[in-house]
Amino acid sequence: MQDVNVETIGEDVLLFEALRTTRAIRRLKPDPVPMALIRKVCEAGTFAPSGGNRQPWFFIAVTDQERRAFVAERYRTAFESYIAPALDAAKSPDFPEDKRKNIAAARHLAEHMHEVPVQLFVAGWTRRGHEQSQALFPCIQNILLACRGVGLGASLTTVHRTFGREIDAYLGLPERIPTAALIPIGWPVGRYGRPKRKAVDDCLFTDRFSGKAFDRE
Amino acid sequence: MQDVNVETIGEDVLLFEALRTTRAIRRLKPDPVPMALIRKVCEAGTFAPSGGNRQPWFFIAVTDQERRAFVAERYRTAFESYIAPALDAAKSPDFPEDKRKNIAAARHLAEHMHEVPVQLFVAGWTRRGHEQSQALFPCIQNILLACRGVGLGASLTTVHRTFGREIDAYLGLPERIPTAALIPIGWPVGRYGRPKRKAVDDCLFTDRFSGKAFDRE
Repeated sequence: MQDVNVETIGEDVLLFEALRTTRAIRRLKPDPVPMALIRKVCEAGTFAPSGGNRQPWFFIAVTDQERRAFVAERYRTAFESYIAPALDAAKSPDFPEDKRKNIAAARHLAEHMHEVPVQLFVAGWTRRGHEQSQALFPCIQNILLACRGVGLGASLTTVHRTFGREIDAYLGLPERIPTAALIPIGWPVGRYGRPKRKAVDDCLFTDRFSGKAFDRE
Repeated sequence: MQDVNVETIGEDVLLFEALRTTRAIRRLKPDPVPMALIRKVCEAGTFAPSGGNRQPWFFIAVTDQERRAFVAERYRTAFESYIAPALDAAKSPDFPEDKRKNIAAARHLAEHMHEVPVQLFVAGWTRRGHEQSQALFPCIQNILLACRGVGLGASLTTVHRTFGREIDAYLGLPERIPTAALIPIGWPVGRYGRPKRKAVDDCLFTDRFSGKAFDRE
């Protein structure tokens, strides 16, 4: 996987195939990823829309071993608090098997975060004191699709934000440009595939919402 | 354009081509769009990631003429306030031509909003009183890319939110499921093409941010 041609890799992948099979890949090989590929997927991110075309995004690709360990240590601590309620719920024999698998994969990622070859942070200017999630998350989705395109495994997490300010400062980011998301990227152990979702017909309404106001939180 | 085959349309479009050429299309024909195509692009939206796979999204496709007029009236009012400062700035002879074009297109959209065949609203559950933009905007980006794939013109706007609660109630949405965005969809007058963006090399850093903390707001 070292001899990739950055110009051509992924260029034959079809849009709808990518849309339908981009799912979180959290088991990653520790092998290095060429920086030119990270550049390619970030460039895909820059084509996303943003209010007034302000393009508030910055990308920080953490690859240095010591720096990855710094991030990983904090990520693991944050993840343990984040996942504790789900682990409790998962003790029930009725707990859905697909959720159990997702938790196991998320846990694997947390435990191996220091070995993930690229910890890609997406940061963005605040505007009037607010993050511009509306501009950063379309960009992030483009990056995830582009990773799928070039055959890289990736997923989206915001769990690091428990230690947000500390990590931001470590990355050299000023307070006005906080990280919004972390995309751990590497060559996948598993395969891409159609993610499990509710049916579109349960979400789409003509002219007027007439669904149940689900009492999910 | 009436005899589209929903199964096959857009299926030959390449991912990276779509990523690079999906730009806001704000000049739309008033011709109707088959609901099966709207379903196809919304389904693409449902494959997006969301925290804990909660999938907080709902889609309301407003197609009824009277209902579109209701939305359009409020949209125009909101847009006029939104665009006023930019119109002032645009009086300067140094104002960039591409921004001037964008403003003209956005204005065209506002003035013709009642004729846009599908006003697609994306709404989502709140969680602990907060919107889940992190989950809705990847989904929205998938929809914009899918529109590009099937040849529909689309753009992303949140301007309607000035009248958010009034429009949400009109759409039958409970307070817990506010609209986050409006995607006006129709057959394009113009063409897709590479949007103008800053270079990725100005946004991407290895290990540590070392850019200027731009003083843009």
